[in-house]
Amino acid sequence: MKTKELGIGLLGFGTAGAGVVEGLQRNGALLAERLGVKLVLRKIADLDLDTDRGVTVERALLTRDAEAVVRDPNVDVVVELIGGTGMAKKFVLEALKLGKPVVTANKKLLAEYGTEIFSASAAAGAPIHFEASVGGGIPVIKALREGLVANHIKSIYGILNGTCNYILTRMEREKLPFDAVLKAAQAAGYAEAEPSLDIDGHDTAHKAIVLASLAYGSTVPLAAAHIEGIRGLAAEDITDALEMGYRIKLLGIVKRGASGVSVRVHPTLVPLQHMLAAVDGVFNAILIEGDLVGQTLYFGRGAGRQATASAVLSDLADVARDRAAGASHPLALPGQASAGLHAQATGAELVRCYLRLALLDKPGMLARVAQLLGAHQISIASVMQKESSIGNHVPVVIVTHEAPEQAFQQALAAIDQLDIVGAPTVRLRIEDFA
Amino acid sequence: MKTKELGIGLLGFGTAGAGVVEGLQRNGALLAERLGVKLVLRKIADLDLDTDRGVTVERALLTRDAEAVVRDPNVDVVVELIGGTGMAKKFVLEALKLGKPVVTANKKLLAEYGTEIFSASAAAGAPIHFEASVGGGIPVIKALREGLVANHIKSIYGILNGTCNYILTRMEREKLPFDAVLKAAQAAGYAEAEPSLDIDGHDTAHKAIVLASLAYGSTVPLAAAHIEGIRGLAAEDITDALEMGYRIKLLGIVKRGASGVSVRVHPTLVPLQHMLAAVDGVFNAILIEGDLVGQTLYFGRGAGRQATASAVLSDLADVARDRAAGASHPLALPGQASAGLHAQATGAELVRCYLRLALLDKPGMLARVAQLLGAHQISIASVMQKESSIGNHVPVVIVTHEAPEQAFQQALAAIDQLDIVGAPTVRLRIEDFA
Repeated sequence: MKTKELGIGLLGFGTAGAGVVEGLQRNGALLAERLGVKLVLRKIADLDLDTDRGVTVERALLTRDAEAVVRDPNVDVVVELIGGTGMAKKFVLEALKLGKPVVTANKKLLAEYGTEIFSASAAAGAPIHFEASVGGGIPVIKALREGLVANHIKSIYGILNGTCNYILTRMEREKLPFDAVLKAAQAAGYAEAEPSLDIDGHDTAHKAIVLASLAYGSTVPLAAAHIEGIRGLAAEDITDALEMGYRIKLLGIVKRGASGVSVRVHPTLVPLQHMLAAVDGVFNAILIEGDLVGQTLYFGRGAGRQATASAVLSDLADVARDRAAGASHPLALPGQASAGLHAQATGAELVRCYLRLALLDKPGMLARVAQLLGAHQISIASVMQKESSIGNHVPVVIVTHEAPEQAFQQALAAIDQLDIVGAPTVRLRIEDFA
Repeated sequence: MKTKELGIGLLGFGTAGAGVVEGLQRNGALLAERLGVKLVLRKIADLDLDTDRGVTVERALLTRDAEAVVRDPNVDVVVELIGGTGMAKKFVLEALKLGKPVVTANKKLLAEYGTEIFSASAAAGAPIHFEASVGGGIPVIKALREGLVANHIKSIYGILNGTCNYILTRMEREKLPFDAVLKAAQAAGYAEAEPSLDIDGHDTAHKAIVLASLAYGSTVPLAAAHIEGIRGLAAEDITDALEMGYRIKLLGIVKRGASGVSVRVHPTLVPLQHMLAAVDGVFNAILIEGDLVGQTLYFGRGAGRQATASAVLSDLADVARDRAAGASHPLALPGQASAGLHAQATGAELVRCYLRLALLDKPGMLARVAQLLGAHQISIASVMQKESSIGNHVPVVIVTHEAPEQAFQQALAAIDQLDIVGAPTVRLRIEDFA
């Protein structure tokens, strides 16, 4: 049998794009053997054609004209690794309109314009693949869409941003403040010069939205997500949480409640014996619970040129198999399935919390706080008071039982008004994964 | 669009079969929505039609004639959940010969007759799916074949047998001997009355062979695998290993070395901080390292009626999509790819070991052992000697650095000849996952 070919047009020759080219050069023969289809790079578009990417490509493959790449009849599939929502969106929609399958790693694009892009894909009968958009090389999109296709998804908890996890790991191990570790991470190339997308939780939210859309069959609007990053996190909270048996992780959390789907991103106390607590450094992990399968977890390198290439190439392999078959029948895309649910307003969901208060160092102070918590139906699970003090105040850590999110908001508003409280109370959420 | 149908013929109405029927009744509508194809149970064959399986099915679906189910023109796909290698093999081959896709959970069949079955599948152009054969509901077969398709696989380490992991977890937590925990596990339904398939490592070996075949593109003969179970494991080894920073797990290990692929199953010391050490009870986990993706890990419930149903139904979903497309182009099956490698003879591979010796309680005894180890180029990493004694002997635990497997065999044969050694030395392997 003559080996078939799949012509690839690559948009974006940055780190991820160069990784795909390198991966193809290195393992293209293996892929051809496994697939019975040869993946052939036909064109690479980038505005910058001069920077050395550490891979050698024929000059004739390179062009600044992305539009021409999309339209090139020898290009069967378009790989979008430009990033962002400007040019990337334009070319993705153009490719789909031409009936060409698209492979992308662009979580921001999918989180912000998922409805438009998924309907363009459905209308044109051209599939869109996005394994590299979440969890780097971990095949979690495939696991969720295909492997767990028979399950109603109950919840998803993900460590989805390697930069944040790297910073949290170093803050804990080296007992350093956030700012110092961020600077070190930037110097080491693990954080961007403009780090907001990562550390303020937006990237995690984009990925959580992509997972939520797949799990529940309708795109969840980004505006409905609750997003907190790790910027304000104090080193002492990491230490105190550890003493109480928890490790702090930035989690993207997707849950289906009675009234809809909620998407939340915030620093979270994870019990030390839980597997997610063992995920350190730049690694990612995603815990998915289905009604049949129970809890499953997927772990691996969440970013990096080779891991991303592994995911992009697996998407190309799926496209290649469809093309070799001469037909495909894709799974329903978000926005099309009638099971679609609207995002739940935060407030009613039950949460457990870690509270760190700065209380005046006098007898009876804790009782006043406990009374106020009780008045909002929040009961206390454990308390830790340290000998250290800041001025006239001592830090007191309280771990609570479960109560509605809004009860905490109201109770803390009242507590922080008390004259015995010396600084705004720090509140972090605890997850027990029950 | 009129929803298409996929007619299912189920062979075997035991625990797994009833789970599939139940899963289909419960989540069939969800599957139809996601797939655009309705999965319809057309026939169920079992010799025992009277036992209550906890699910209600129309009597007309039930038959004792599996042959007729396979031949039924309304049956588009055959699900084999009979188990074993007798009837199961016969019907799987018949279905494939008729060009019907087969879904099976039968690791024993694939490990023992993989070559025959995979070539029958290729010859007939009828795919065989077997997600439920390894890792229960964890979509690890899909991850390995599709998600990591662009990777050369370096190694696979799996906790693949829930019964063994449950026994090891209880032995550690309750400090009980193997026999007592096995009895308790049998009473609780976590171990079979005839437990040998599980506890002697055969089931783990079957699963490791399936993974090895997929990773390296050629079926690995079961006879070439090194298999040790957990039957001989002493409670004190679990405790001593723990004190030295390791937890004992029964691992299936697939590695590619210079001379070929090795498949090994044995109790293994896993560093406590490694994620595999956190996998307790009946859970399974598989660590797969690829050259592009690096280390990835897949975790979940390794057995059970619902988890197995989740995997079988995901295979049926793949079959349904192929059928709806009207064509399919399957991935290369083991035995067909030219990258196939032959199983490596054990002996040359480098291993680290934990040794527990019973040494005469006199000065200079450890020196004699150390000298013998040194003579075989085995160097010592750490030693722990306890105050307890058994008669005139004291237990001494030695953790070594890396040396060839055969050096250990030779050194221990010599050591166990010494008159200062009171009992055969216990040797367990250590993995650092480097």
